[in-house]
Amino acid sequence: MDFQLCNNSIFKFSSKNAPALKINSGDVVEIHTYDCFSNQLQTPEDTLDAMDWERINPATGPIYIEEAKEGDVLKVTIEEINLNNQGVMVAGEGSGILGHMLKGMESKIIPIKDNEGIFDEQLSIPLNPMIGVIGVAPSKEEINSGTPGPHGGNMDNLMITTGATIYFPVFTDGALFALGDLHAAMGDGEIGVTGIEIAGSVKVKLEVVKGLKLNNPVLENKESFTTIASEINLEEAVNQATIDMAEILKERMPMGLHKIAMLMSAVGHTEICQVVDPLKTARFVMPKWVLETYDFKF
Amino acid sequence: MDFQLCNNSIFKFSSKNAPALKINSGDVVEIHTYDCFSNQLQTPEDTLDAMDWERINPATGPIYIEEAKEGDVLKVTIEEINLNNQGVMVAGEGSGILGHMLKGMESKIIPIKDNEGIFDEQLSIPLNPMIGVIGVAPSKEEINSGTPGPHGGNMDNLMITTGATIYFPVFTDGALFALGDLHAAMGDGEIGVTGIEIAGSVKVKLEVVKGLKLNNPVLENKESFTTIASEINLEEAVNQATIDMAEILKERMPMGLHKIAMLMSAVGHTEICQVVDPLKTARFVMPKWVLETYDFKF
Repeated sequence: MDFQLCNNSIFKFSSKNAPALKINSGDVVEIHTYDCFSNQLQTPEDTLDAMDWERINPATGPIYIEEAKEGDVLKVTIEEINLNNQGVMVAGEGSGILGHMLKGMESKIIPIKDNEGIFDEQLSIPLNPMIGVIGVAPSKEEINSGTPGPHGGNMDNLMITTGATIYFPVFTDGALFALGDLHAAMGDGEIGVTGIEIAGSVKVKLEVVKGLKLNNPVLENKESFTTIASEINLEEAVNQATIDMAEILKERMPMGLHKIAMLMSAVGHTEICQVVDPLKTARFVMPKWVLETYDFKF
Repeated sequence: MDFQLCNNSIFKFSSKNAPALKINSGDVVEIHTYDCFSNQLQTPEDTLDAMDWERINPATGPIYIEEAKEGDVLKVTIEEINLNNQGVMVAGEGSGILGHMLKGMESKIIPIKDNEGIFDEQLSIPLNPMIGVIGVAPSKEEINSGTPGPHGGNMDNLMITTGATIYFPVFTDGALFALGDLHAAMGDGEIGVTGIEIAGSVKVKLEVVKGLKLNNPVLENKESFTTIASEINLEEAVNQATIDMAEILKERMPMGLHKIAMLMSAVGHTEICQVVDPLKTARFVMPKWVLETYDFKF
């Protein structure tokens, strides 16, 4: 590991944010981050009423990568995720898909022990650690860290975990990378607005890739190659992730688009990342063994 | 096996359809069915232009179950799926998510051999046999067999496969069950409008359950308990499947709805069945081992 960055919270992705750290392409950084509530809920007695709702979804950063220029791609390899020893969940009125069925807010501390989250006396949940917020600065506008987009941000995607490589389009010099909002466990959709929210640290390798064009983040892991899109509704997000995949395959597969459409329909999966943020996020997942049959390379 | 029913095609689910077979609750029926094109595409030379598009999505049935009355539930256990030795796919202009990027229609015969679909010389796709169209007659309206709904129909849900049990609300005396549209393989979303479409037969056990109320189909298999909803768009389908799950758990779990929302958010998954039929279909999947921790019984 080359660098450490500790809890330098930003609450929006913006090209105007001053770098918290400057590194070179290829450097590895260990990034420490608060939970999505800036660690304000630590005991069952911490009331939601007393919480400062301005300090939601902190991301640690931004990190300026010297070689990154507008139009490049930033390749982020997640080498390690370390979680603190307790998480927290919240559910309540107006929050998430079931928000209209709930009265008032409730929170719940979830101790982490032996790689499980202790939900209650009966149930311990095996962890699936993941990163909720991760991305780069957008080109002009400032985007709240609770919102996803082509720059990444609050995608709440289960696949953003140890071993995954994510590619982001770079919109501004230095890329201005940041991450936060770790989850100890979460289901696809994050229907109640929180996963098991938790503080911790993430070790990432950051590399600049030249000559690759992207509209939206793309993820690669051992099993699959995945496009990710965030749009005003789920319908649009699914459409965009599917179209992004078709566009990428069209350039790299030895077949016409009709056959690509059949292939995607037969073996590709449209999946839901989250449906509770200001934009919704979907992904299109192609099994890598299928792509490798055709010598696909990204 | 008690009964056989061969290719008695219906093209709409309707309480007005005359029964093709009458059985008693608990009987097992082997149902033979054409592919979604009524087997019109058999060789690479069969042109799409010559196809009768009125004969799309045949379902075999309907089967009248003597004990079934309006307000009951029909429990369908899928004991066996047998596929013919070749399937077919279609992609083209105006069809599916990529339809706007395609000019003209193309089809492709896919031989089935050794439990794989031969996509081309490079790629053989392992089969995941499933039933695209399955359901009962709706209460009043007649619903085209290409459209899903509370009665089931064209849900194109990967989970509707061997070993699964599906529960349908019964809207009319006898239930009038039918199924068709087998797929040898399909990805979630069915983004190009076809999976590997294929003819074959399905062995199902049909049982009437009294005293259980359902809004929409529910599926149970070894791993999970799943609600399924079809709505005008994916957003609404996801919302309804999630709400259906919350309503079912609320009656059967030893905890309040806030905690149920947290549990669903932490371990439940919102997933996509299909996004290309006249209504879109989503499912909410809860791991059964989690529910069993709380002695959940449906």
